[in-house]
Amino acid sequence: MSSQLTLANIRRQLVRLEETIIFALIERAQFCRNPKVYEKGAFPEGCGHESLVGFLLHETEKIHAQMRRYTSPDEHPFFRDLPEPVLLPLRYEHNPLHPNTVNINDRIRDAYEQDIVPLICRDGDDQQYGSSAVCDVALLQSLSKRIHYGKFVAESKFRSHPETYNSLIRAADDTGLLQALTDQEVESQVLKRVERKATLYCAELRNAGGDHDHPVDPQAVVAVYANWIVPCTKLVQVQYLRQRLPDARRSVDPK
Amino acid sequence: MSSQLTLANIRRQLVRLEETIIFALIERAQFCRNPKVYEKGAFPEGCGHESLVGFLLHETEKIHAQMRRYTSPDEHPFFRDLPEPVLLPLRYEHNPLHPNTVNINDRIRDAYEQDIVPLICRDGDDQQYGSSAVCDVALLQSLSKRIHYGKFVAESKFRSHPETYNSLIRAADDTGLLQALTDQEVESQVLKRVERKATLYCAELRNAGGDHDHPVDPQAVVAVYANWIVPCTKLVQVQYLRQRLPDARRSVDPK
Repeated sequence: MSSQLTLANIRRQLVRLEETIIFALIERAQFCRNPKVYEKGAFPEGCGHESLVGFLLHETEKIHAQMRRYTSPDEHPFFRDLPEPVLLPLRYEHNPLHPNTVNINDRIRDAYEQDIVPLICRDGDDQQYGSSAVCDVALLQSLSKRIHYGKFVAESKFRSHPETYNSLIRAADDTGLLQALTDQEVESQVLKRVERKATLYCAELRNAGGDHDHPVDPQAVVAVYANWIVPCTKLVQVQYLRQRLPDARRSVDPK
Repeated sequence: MSSQLTLANIRRQLVRLEETIIFALIERAQFCRNPKVYEKGAFPEGCGHESLVGFLLHETEKIHAQMRRYTSPDEHPFFRDLPEPVLLPLRYEHNPLHPNTVNINDRIRDAYEQDIVPLICRDGDDQQYGSSAVCDVALLQSLSKRIHYGKFVAESKFRSHPETYNSLIRAADDTGLLQALTDQEVESQVLKRVERKATLYCAELRNAGGDHDHPVDPQAVVAVYANWIVPCTKLVQVQYLRQRLPDARRSVDPK
């Protein structure tokens, strides 16, 4: 099996991404919620019909696409109208995933703007729009990467128990798939580890900065994992497996 | 005195930026040194005469300039040919700094590429050029912000002891200025705190990820502060004070 698909290696990547996400949440929580940056058309002079965050995300993806970011199987863009890479393609050892079109970034962006930001930031508007939006883009990119890593998890699990998954996929049994994919023990370990890390990092920060910094609440970080990251990762797994069989490809909407 | 200029508030900002810088160093250290991304002309198909990092930094600054990043007194661009902001200007309460042209980003970029990256990253080339460069841009921006914060430190110290500084500035006595600005006690506190934080964050990471992640060495983080951040901040302070007197402005090179 490709080394990218051993569960130990996948888990190591997911654990490593926890720091990236927790650090990014802490960075965003420095600023107020600033709802204006998510409002479409709020800055017509620069961002047209997009929101400020949408504009910055789009512009950032255009540059990153040129640097071939989205040729990597673990990266998924939020926008579709991106330029071609200007760097020569990297030869990935071998993309271990089955061809698929799964991309739930629209859902991630909605959840982020509507639920996650209000959870981690103080209410209000501090006018730090650019700084907030720069943090938002970094966070959206990390969340997307973490959540779409579900494809590797699903592929690995599929290869370990092809019979089980084959029959569930053929029966289009999403509930059965979800049950087969769920490992309650591992999920609760993830949440405990995230809580421990978030507590550690936030305490250090509070300690150094006093009360003025409004560091993010560790329980809010756990909630981001429990309510959005874990369920969205499972959604990616189910959607991926639904496209996993050779003959299932025909039903994939090619748009 | 403006709240931006109380030493307690400035210090709180500097302490807060330590996390940003340490987190960013840890992120960069995931990838190999990848010297090719700093080589000018190494990717002529996409980056022309610039290096990959230079190209990404420039493109990023163009977008951030549109979001009025560089109208803030604590932000300094690496490039000069940037577009005008598309957002309406923020009304900063009051820019507490004396008008000045100090910007040592060229020096920061050289030190970063030639000294800091080799110190924190494993040697070699893992072809993760885009990912490395994204980390580089984030780090260069944080280092620049931290180091140019020296302007606020210098302004605050100047206002507390105007007589002392006035005579040193009039005498163009850089050595005397450096001595007056240096507080050995505070410097050693900074290094101790950075060491403690870096040890904490890196241990947590090593703990979670095993040996494969090559987390950055805490002593390397301390060295980045001791050898580059602290001395560069003092350089900014001296350069700023040399432009501090009303009649000193005439000697400012306007380019």
